[in-house]
Amino acid sequence: MPALNRAYVLELDAADALAQFRNEFQLPDRVIYLNGNSLGAMPKHAMEIARRTLMEEWATDLIKSWNTADWFHLPQRLGRQVASLVGAAEDELVVTDATGINLFKALAAALALRPDRNVIVMEGSNFPTDNYTAQGLIALLGNRHRIRFAEHDEILPAIDDQVAVVALTDVHYKTGRVHDMAEITARAHAKGALTVWDLCHSAGVMPVDLNRCQADFAVGCTYKYLNGGPGSPAFIFAARRHHGTATQPLTGWFGHASPFAFERDYRPAPGIEQMLSGTPPVVSLAVAEAGISMTARAPMAAIREKSQRLGDLFINLVDEHCGEFDFKLASPRDAHHRGSQVSFLHAHGYPIMRALIGWGVIGDFRAPDILRFGFAPLYLRYVDVWDAAQILREVMETEAWRRPEFNTRLSVT
Amino acid sequence: MPALNRAYVLELDAADALAQFRNEFQLPDRVIYLNGNSLGAMPKHAMEIARRTLMEEWATDLIKSWNTADWFHLPQRLGRQVASLVGAAEDELVVTDATGINLFKALAAALALRPDRNVIVMEGSNFPTDNYTAQGLIALLGNRHRIRFAEHDEILPAIDDQVAVVALTDVHYKTGRVHDMAEITARAHAKGALTVWDLCHSAGVMPVDLNRCQADFAVGCTYKYLNGGPGSPAFIFAARRHHGTATQPLTGWFGHASPFAFERDYRPAPGIEQMLSGTPPVVSLAVAEAGISMTARAPMAAIREKSQRLGDLFINLVDEHCGEFDFKLASPRDAHHRGSQVSFLHAHGYPIMRALIGWGVIGDFRAPDILRFGFAPLYLRYVDVWDAAQILREVMETEAWRRPEFNTRLSVT
Repeated sequence: MPALNRAYVLELDAADALAQFRNEFQLPDRVIYLNGNSLGAMPKHAMEIARRTLMEEWATDLIKSWNTADWFHLPQRLGRQVASLVGAAEDELVVTDATGINLFKALAAALALRPDRNVIVMEGSNFPTDNYTAQGLIALLGNRHRIRFAEHDEILPAIDDQVAVVALTDVHYKTGRVHDMAEITARAHAKGALTVWDLCHSAGVMPVDLNRCQADFAVGCTYKYLNGGPGSPAFIFAARRHHGTATQPLTGWFGHASPFAFERDYRPAPGIEQMLSGTPPVVSLAVAEAGISMTARAPMAAIREKSQRLGDLFINLVDEHCGEFDFKLASPRDAHHRGSQVSFLHAHGYPIMRALIGWGVIGDFRAPDILRFGFAPLYLRYVDVWDAAQILREVMETEAWRRPEFNTRLSVT
Repeated sequence: MPALNRAYVLELDAADALAQFRNEFQLPDRVIYLNGNSLGAMPKHAMEIARRTLMEEWATDLIKSWNTADWFHLPQRLGRQVASLVGAAEDELVVTDATGINLFKALAAALALRPDRNVIVMEGSNFPTDNYTAQGLIALLGNRHRIRFAEHDEILPAIDDQVAVVALTDVHYKTGRVHDMAEITARAHAKGALTVWDLCHSAGVMPVDLNRCQADFAVGCTYKYLNGGPGSPAFIFAARRHHGTATQPLTGWFGHASPFAFERDYRPAPGIEQMLSGTPPVVSLAVAEAGISMTARAPMAAIREKSQRLGDLFINLVDEHCGEFDFKLASPRDAHHRGSQVSFLHAHGYPIMRALIGWGVIGDFRAPDILRFGFAPLYLRYVDVWDAAQILREVMETEAWRRPEFNTRLSVT
């Protein structure tokens, strides 16, 4: 490895094939944003879409916009673009509702396909809203199923012939550790189980190949590495072989075989549209296309390579420049086993992150002791990573994090 | 009744206490918009909210906006405003998800409170997505329940002691006919059943008093008379007496008792927040506040009075000016039994509506033969109703609707 200095990282930026994408984002001054793993930055084009959707469509064409602006097919149009990023066919994925709602649909559809089995395998330590969704579904179904919680290496052996569904997030939200989707899916299928993959932390930043893995169902958000905007609608994938046999239970008119016949009784749409429920939030959906379409035209191999190099650089810089401050790497050091985030443990993680944010480096903190730093290759530069590490060193050297204002808890709910 | 002429209706506009609200809307030129019962018009302030949400919040404060712009509490903040319009307490209603998703939550919560009963009473002819939602839930629960479909006058006698839930839309989407919410709710309670009211066609345009009626649950959209924007998130109401005992099954982190503790297992929030599921679509939600807050500060008695007078005027004008063209009133003539729309039957309803739209009068058509005209008192003038009736007469007199271009079916899905 060459000597790590600012000149070197500026050379990396000069040679960066993705560098021009940064110009397409509206980024704040004097901020290094390492939290794209939570909320992606804003593509400039998002504002133009919002203006057009409101002023030219809603205000001007009013109800006619469902046809003239084709609001009706936003779920499918965005779905095709997300599909291209996760190894799905164009008719296997739609953008709609929230991730948890879509997970409910996928889990219910999958359980119905395995009526004689009663176990869902999940990784309990991952982002817990997935657990909550499964627990709500299980209670609704009369507690005939149960979750078998298993952590990383325990997952493969936990998949036996009682298992109906393996429902996992492929990248761990705290550590960034990656599951082997192909291996786990193969094991699930070998045991007669189905898979539901939550791609929240991988879609748009890592190669995902659902169909090569023969995944059954998948869901994910569009507001992290797809830069769709705060709370932008999520996506749901159902492999074509399940179309027509797997039926999700949140049955609404957008998923009806003939929505405008206004028939009294539900008839499921034959294709991926059955995964739709009610009228989608058009403004959020339309705005999300800015980030999704930008990501869909970026070369994924370059995204993944830069993502890994940004993460490696940060790990090396923290090792080299902050070695004496007791940060413990919580993410895999090998980039092949890591998503696009790097996490460190520190006993004073909370005030350290608060101080870093005060100094303009935005990461986040997850109790009890994890500092998370996300690396979004479309708008982050190598020099940002260099500068972030220097600011981290400064916060530690000056003990800025000990100031009282960084030790009061922020109320978030 | 005074002589109906244009001078008379202009006098009505001059005396209209709500007239100034029209200035707060961004309305297209040369269009008379009688479809606010499907998608409300755009408040000018919506564009400013969109700009601020994107440029000042998402782009500038990024993830911090969840706190600094209080995105976290948008469901509650908007909920308090909708609550004031439907007779709910501030802590009994949140804005989140789509109407059908919220109906699923309310129905599931209600059925769980009546485990020994198996009938849901619904009006099958009303907007069918509510039927679809109930049918999806019933299938998921193993077909232990059934829907007892009943039309208007059949509803009270259909409520017996097998009934778990009466789930009705208070205003019929085709005819505008209004149910007596107090009477039906009282009958339901007398028989031990619970009620779920769908307020899509009443919220914001009619006085609704959920708590005076002792309603149990309610849902509704915000994109019709609340002018929240296309597909803007819906609301859900749960009477305070059910908080803590009624649990909806789409359990996500926003409905957890402690969302940021990231506990492995679900614990329901004790209050109305339990009705929340996942991360909401912030841009659509934020934009919706423009229309919701405007409606919340308009005097409801004046809204209802003008709504009724606009509808009466249109009925009288069609009677008087289009008497020979075979329109048959499909709505109650008595405004007290009518929501804020007027519907007519006509054998050539489809091309007539297409021609009207071509002439700049936007209503809509529902198969097989219904022309719907919605009256949104905050932006419609009496003179608009006058002019719409004259244009209808012109379309009929000239037989413009017979032109081939109005007889081809528009593809909407």
